[in-house]
Amino acid sequence: MTDERTRKVGDFAHLDLDRVRRRGYPEAIYCESKTVEQVAAIAASLREVNQTTLFTRANPEHAAAVMEVLDDVFYDPVARFLAYPAAAPEATGVSVLVLCAGTSDLPVAREAMHTARYLGRSVSLIADVGVAGIHRLLSYEAELQAAGVVVIAAGMDGALPSVVGGLVSCPVVAVPTSVGYGAGAGGIAPLLTMLNSCAPGVGVVNIDNGYGAGHLAAQIAAR
Amino acid sequence: MTDERTRKVGDFAHLDLDRVRRRGYPEAIYCESKTVEQVAAIAASLREVNQTTLFTRANPEHAAAVMEVLDDVFYDPVARFLAYPAAAPEATGVSVLVLCAGTSDLPVAREAMHTARYLGRSVSLIADVGVAGIHRLLSYEAELQAAGVVVIAAGMDGALPSVVGGLVSCPVVAVPTSVGYGAGAGGIAPLLTMLNSCAPGVGVVNIDNGYGAGHLAAQIAAR
Amino acid sequence: MTDERTRKVGDFAHLDLDRVRRRGYPEAIYCESKTVEQVAAIAASLREVNQTTLFTRANPEHAAAVMEVLDDVFYDPVARFLAYPAAAPEATGVSVLVLCAGTSDLPVAREAMHTARYLGRSVSLIADVGVAGIHRLLSYEAELQAAGVVVIAAGMDGALPSVVGGLVSCPVVAVPTSVGYGAGAGGIAPLLTMLNSCAPGVGVVNIDNGYGAGHLAAQIAAR
Amino acid sequence: MTDERTRKVGDFAHLDLDRVRRRGYPEAIYCESKTVEQVAAIAASLREVNQTTLFTRANPEHAAAVMEVLDDVFYDPVARFLAYPAAAPEATGVSVLVLCAGTSDLPVAREAMHTARYLGRSVSLIADVGVAGIHRLLSYEAELQAAGVVVIAAGMDGALPSVVGGLVSCPVVAVPTSVGYGAGAGGIAPLLTMLNSCAPGVGVVNIDNGYGAGHLAAQIAAR
Amino acid sequence: MTDERTRKVGDFAHLDLDRVRRRGYPEAIYCESKTVEQVAAIAASLREVNQTTLFTRANPEHAAAVMEVLDDVFYDPVARFLAYPAAAPEATGVSVLVLCAGTSDLPVAREAMHTARYLGRSVSLIADVGVAGIHRLLSYEAELQAAGVVVIAAGMDGALPSVVGGLVSCPVVAVPTSVGYGAGAGGIAPLLTMLNSCAPGVGVVNIDNGYGAGHLAAQIAAR
Amino acid sequence: MTDERTRKVGDFAHLDLDRVRRRGYPEAIYCESKTVEQVAAIAASLREVNQTTLFTRANPEHAAAVMEVLDDVFYDPVARFLAYPAAAPEATGVSVLVLCAGTSDLPVAREAMHTARYLGRSVSLIADVGVAGIHRLLSYEAELQAAGVVVIAAGMDGALPSVVGGLVSCPVVAVPTSVGYGAGAGGIAPLLTMLNSCAPGVGVVNIDNGYGAGHLAAQIAAR
Amino acid sequence: MTDERTRKVGDFAHLDLDRVRRRGYPEAIYCESKTVEQVAAIAASLREVNQTTLFTRANPEHAAAVMEVLDDVFYDPVARFLAYPAAAPEATGVSVLVLCAGTSDLPVAREAMHTARYLGRSVSLIADVGVAGIHRLLSYEAELQAAGVVVIAAGMDGALPSVVGGLVSCPVVAVPTSVGYGAGAGGIAPLLTMLNSCAPGVGVVNIDNGYGAGHLAAQIAAR
Amino acid sequence: MTDERTRKVGDFAHLDLDRVRRRGYPEAIYCESKTVEQVAAIAASLREVNQTTLFTRANPEHAAAVMEVLDDVFYDPVARFLAYPAAAPEATGVSVLVLCAGTSDLPVAREAMHTARYLGRSVSLIADVGVAGIHRLLSYEAELQAAGVVVIAAGMDGALPSVVGGLVSCPVVAVPTSVGYGAGAGGIAPLLTMLNSCAPGVGVVNIDNGYGAGHLAAQIAAR
Repeated sequence: MTDERTRKVGDFAHLDLDRVRRRGYPEAIYCESKTVEQVAAIAASLREVNQTTLFTRANPEHAAAVMEVLDDVFYDPVARFLAYPAAAPEATGVSVLVLCAGTSDLPVAREAMHTARYLGRSVSLIADVGVAGIHRLLSYEAELQAAGVVVIAAGMDGALPSVVGGLVSCPVVAVPTSVGYGAGAGGIAPLLTMLNSCAPGVGVVNIDNGYGAGHLAAQIAAR
Repeated sequence: MTDERTRKVGDFAHLDLDRVRRRGYPEAIYCESKTVEQVAAIAASLREVNQTTLFTRANPEHAAAVMEVLDDVFYDPVARFLAYPAAAPEATGVSVLVLCAGTSDLPVAREAMHTARYLGRSVSLIADVGVAGIHRLLSYEAELQAAGVVVIAAGMDGALPSVVGGLVSCPVVAVPTSVGYGAGAGGIAPLLTMLNSCAPGVGVVNIDNGYGAGHLAAQIAAR
Repeated sequence: MTDERTRKVGDFAHLDLDRVRRRGYPEAIYCESKTVEQVAAIAASLREVNQTTLFTRANPEHAAAVMEVLDDVFYDPVARFLAYPAAAPEATGVSVLVLCAGTSDLPVAREAMHTARYLGRSVSLIADVGVAGIHRLLSYEAELQAAGVVVIAAGMDGALPSVVGGLVSCPVVAVPTSVGYGAGAGGIAPLLTMLNSCAPGVGVVNIDNGYGAGHLAAQIAAR
Repeated sequence: MTDERTRKVGDFAHLDLDRVRRRGYPEAIYCESKTVEQVAAIAASLREVNQTTLFTRANPEHAAAVMEVLDDVFYDPVARFLAYPAAAPEATGVSVLVLCAGTSDLPVAREAMHTARYLGRSVSLIADVGVAGIHRLLSYEAELQAAGVVVIAAGMDGALPSVVGGLVSCPVVAVPTSVGYGAGAGGIAPLLTMLNSCAPGVGVVNIDNGYGAGHLAAQIAAR
Repeated sequence: MTDERTRKVGDFAHLDLDRVRRRGYPEAIYCESKTVEQVAAIAASLREVNQTTLFTRANPEHAAAVMEVLDDVFYDPVARFLAYPAAAPEATGVSVLVLCAGTSDLPVAREAMHTARYLGRSVSLIADVGVAGIHRLLSYEAELQAAGVVVIAAGMDGALPSVVGGLVSCPVVAVPTSVGYGAGAGGIAPLLTMLNSCAPGVGVVNIDNGYGAGHLAAQIAAR
Repeated sequence: MTDERTRKVGDFAHLDLDRVRRRGYPEAIYCESKTVEQVAAIAASLREVNQTTLFTRANPEHAAAVMEVLDDVFYDPVARFLAYPAAAPEATGVSVLVLCAGTSDLPVAREAMHTARYLGRSVSLIADVGVAGIHRLLSYEAELQAAGVVVIAAGMDGALPSVVGGLVSCPVVAVPTSVGYGAGAGGIAPLLTMLNSCAPGVGVVNIDNGYGAGHLAAQIAAR
Repeated sequence: MTDERTRKVGDFAHLDLDRVRRRGYPEAIYCESKTVEQVAAIAASLREVNQTTLFTRANPEHAAAVMEVLDDVFYDPVARFLAYPAAAPEATGVSVLVLCAGTSDLPVAREAMHTARYLGRSVSLIADVGVAGIHRLLSYEAELQAAGVVVIAAGMDGALPSVVGGLVSCPVVAVPTSVGYGAGAGGIAPLLTMLNSCAPGVGVVNIDNGYGAGHLAAQIAAR
Repeated sequence: MTDERTRKVGDFAHLDLDRVRRRGYPEAIYCESKTVEQVAAIAASLREVNQTTLFTRANPEHAAAVMEVLDDVFYDPVARFLAYPAAAPEATGVSVLVLCAGTSDLPVAREAMHTARYLGRSVSLIADVGVAGIHRLLSYEAELQAAGVVVIAAGMDGALPSVVGGLVSCPVVAVPTSVGYGAGAGGIAPLLTMLNSCAPGVGVVNIDNGYGAGHLAAQIAAR
């Protein structure tokens, strides 16, 4: 089994078992557009593979199907995030600080936090520190200065990375969320804001892609 | 002449002389898509009308044509703004504070400033106080608190109104500028940011519409 | 309690209690993307804080949860607007006139109306006066002239602010609504119309943002 | 010659000579993306064909090339419109009234006017009657009621058809112009406004398509 | 009652009773974003007004509410179209021919057909004659030549008006439908095709706006 | 019956029976926006016509209705594809290889596969070989070289055709899928990627249009 | 030289000499965003490589630079296409028929024609057969039936592939052109039309990509 | 001078001298929308400030103006990048590898390379390794594995980060370029591809933002 690089599951999936060797990070199963049966079959095929595996965008039905075949998992329904096995690896590298601008950005922020943790980093989270009441952010300056990398989840105006990016020396990973409405809804407004940040040092991932944000942060913080 | 409400100029314009009576604010001639000859003819027709008149988006050729028929005008080529007569009315109402996020936003900011001044308000301008170095903005807190209305011109991420809106009690008029490039270029990114401002109390005008911003600010500050 | 500027609620919210001091206007809780549990916890934390608080985009479940912990509230399910306490402050400043172009724009218009009222202004509302039958609008000229600020909610062609803006001297706050279909649906058509109003003096807020429109109008009318 | 339905010009054009028989209206040559040589060759091939022919979007170089091979033409450089022969057919049907909202919309309005005239209709034009000073429009109510079809060219907010459409019983042909800037520039804003007109009875053609507007108006007015 | 121009219904509607006098066509109630209660109240207020009235986008609940207060109505649930009274006026003017490109465009085509009929025209309908099998269209050439105006409802590529416009001398009213998927879904693709028709003489209305198409056709065919 | 070119079904459909003679490929019924009754009536009308017929986007209700009137059909609910009769024609021409980038692209890939098979080609399918683990794709180089045409279904970044196009000499048919989220969701991102493929030789069909991809592939592979 | 797969030119290019072996088609140099110096250096490096090479989007300056170092080239300035050596390979496979809807689409159509010819196919071209005068297209039915693959270049409404696709059994390669203006300008309208073609069997390439269309056609016609 | 945090230049700029202390990286002057006079004045004000300063998007006129007041600068006209003083700081941290997909992406790639170098990193560059000839990329696997961070500049399909991201363990910074044409031109296509990368670990900056890419890479590589 050691030199197996790809594992076929039914006629619908080719798991990339080589990824850990090649990249140093585990495979993740994106559940959103998979059926419960497909996710269950993939989970079953992982039983004897001794690797941390993430299941993202896993709704409760997906999660239940996984738990039926794997019995040591962590699941956060808010973040729709599932990890197997439940124990995260011991943390190495520098620390990851996740901020979110509003309460509504929490599901994305938590997906980022869990991802970074299961990829081997220490992580902390501060919620609801948007720029409309900027004293809230400024009261966390010590935490900002101590971070090895900052992840920011923000919807609506998406202005938080521009302000934070101007305050810290470490890289900022910005993830726009689909929180908001009207012109620029669906996350387009904060995505554009973040891409146009007047503070350099901001790397952007796709809207609501907490997994991608946490993965990139974990790589940056690896050292 | 007193009850003339509309003045025909050639077969191409109907000047709205009634506007001062109806709205309390003078007519403005938008020059950008008019020929030099049309602008000159309009200027000539205004000679005997005793009203402040603004010419916006006036390039140097437009301005030269106006100055040939009217001899007491103010012209700022950076803002492409021309006023007749040159003397602004005495200032009344509360004061207007114009901010711009970057040096590149100055032409729009100055168009707003001149418009508000010629509509009868006292105005001041602070340039280059974008959020990436937020200590610059915070050092002007006294000016912010003293303003009756704040106009903000910003391109790129357009984040300044979200921060300022959270600090002041007076209304904010936000004008996105076409400064920037890439995704959201042409002012779309700051327009969306401003429409999605997480701080309430921000009224938005069209991209690069310094005239509209200054006009709205003058009305708000009228008292 | 007096110098508490931010109140943490669970690990998901930082209420901005300082906002009344800093801006003169109360905090508002945007409910749309919050769970019923989060809204209930926030409401509970406000019990002993003696401040008017608004809950916007509150569906009946949100409202029921708030009413369980706060017993003196005003709730309008059409506008999805809830205020605590139920009594609005005594009205000061000049008056706010809310117009809507069609019956379908009423939910947004009412959200604007309630917001301005709970922020301390006197407000009145005229519905269904779109420009396709312009005699309807013109029959209200006295009301238009008497207003200190006009708020206009309109979907579809969004043409009403251009006409009203040309008739009044006071500022106009325009809020596009998502009423309509086809090209420009979701409020994009009226948003663009309003941003391109040929009458100056129109400040625009985001689509369906009745709260923002009412807030801005209240600030303008504050004096 | 009588049964020739298509005439080949070089290896680059197939003139539709059958169009007059089939549709009752002459062929038009769209010059904008043709070379001067191509336009000249087409003009030469028309010499012996006894049909009114229109050349649209003809810049001065195109026009000069045509005039070199055809010596009885009408040319309006503002509308970039050329007709051969110069004499328009005698007018039949009901009359066409062309309105434009601003001076800047005149090139498009004149293209529509010329087209309808050379397709055999009587036409008149009223310029600069936008809705921001609505008394200007209302002073022409007699002309509006007398029209058999109204063509409206408007940029910026494009609101004029909504108001006119609510006043007349005849059809309205609306042509958005690319006059304006910022959000919705290039004519997108007035196009969307016109498509969303709250007054029914408005048929829209493409942005700046004065030729199409005049053609459709001529067909409607044919009787 | 004869000189009543506007009738207020509750505090939510101003019926435009003057429209028949001013425009010659009856009022239409757009039901989609109105509550059942609002539609019922409007219907009740029309009982004693002796005018044909249309209710568009009326779902079965809207229709049932109207039928409870008005007892002589026509209702087509496919077209979501209701007319009161049920008898259409006697047909005058020239005839209206409605085509649709595919079976799926029928709801929009029927809304256009009913509208024109209740506005006093004779109407016929031919379905499923899209350009992919062009012999189907060409077999109806006699009907095309006999029409006073052609209405075309088409989704997907929206190519039918370009072909028909090249075959007939009468005006074409094109209504894009939201039939289709992928790039240009929601009717954007056929809307753009129709606006860019290489055959002149095509007036476009908004996506799925069968009512607007039928109304415009009725005005064109009025004579 | 032999020279029947079009068959009318009720007043809602004109079946193009001539298509087999004209194009060599059978008619396909797009079910998505048809009612179950319409699909059933069409199926019934096909009973005595001796032609392979495809029903695409057929949900289970559509399928059940067809099976009630035709008793020899093939149905794949994942691909929402139904063929009558169930036996595919004997395969001719060169072979079609269908690839999909991820498991989630399978419904579209299978629709393409079935279409090509029922149009008379031999087809095979390889799933989940996206470029993020490129060794998976490279392990199928023999299959790639043997193909007469390659169909690729891919969502998200849509990068697979650029890589495959650079490896093979046969044509590539690329079909973007609506798998993905955030910026470029609904298939816009992979559509643009495929249209901008830096490897030439890629023909693109609409998002999720597995039927179109399979049809084009079958024509290319016809020989 | 035989096993050289990549040739480095300066520090700015890696020529893919292996492409002929791997794909059977020669390398093409896209000149548009390269400097004259870069193109000249690439041309010089090709002198001793015995391979047909194409230079696309080559303006006259690019062409002159190439001709200075290579003395046996074909250049068409309308198509901005240059081939080295000038002699095209002997034609094999089935024939390619290129159609264009209007005269203005010729540059793109000719780029497609030249590309297919230099990739080894026999090609012919018919210009100006758009659907507004459909008798022009129908008069070429014999040519359509004889083609092994049809390439169609069309701007504006882009409707030609839908009609042609319904008439032929061979594949259609559709290339939208940027001819047109207003809504859908820059080729977006014909691109969407082609992607939504109601006739299956149409593969689309990017706007103005005559090279890509010709390349794909040559591969399809290879046999 | 040591505690000066902001330096005012004329009335148009507030230089952020505190940035080095706060962030550890120097101020950069974005020249594109500044006049030559403004850039010269800023350069003059920097003479006595002992800090590395970058001037980005500096055209030759900007550069000449700077060199007139500062005499020790590095300038690359291809990248429009100027640094003062000319000597880059000694390199620390891990190394930065810049890749570009095509020759046309070089200006952006070089801007990134210079930025990272002047922010204190060691950098190398490999050009023209796009995925259409993937053996070119794969021949650099050793360089890829050795990099501490990879920056990728790519236009057109923007597929390179998806492939590279799947091969390396270090973070990837992706910068889309405006190279390309047609649908998705101006860099929108590669931007969306990069945001939708199926390989995690890719942080995206705005289109053509080589400065931002280099800055982020330098921070990531800082250690």
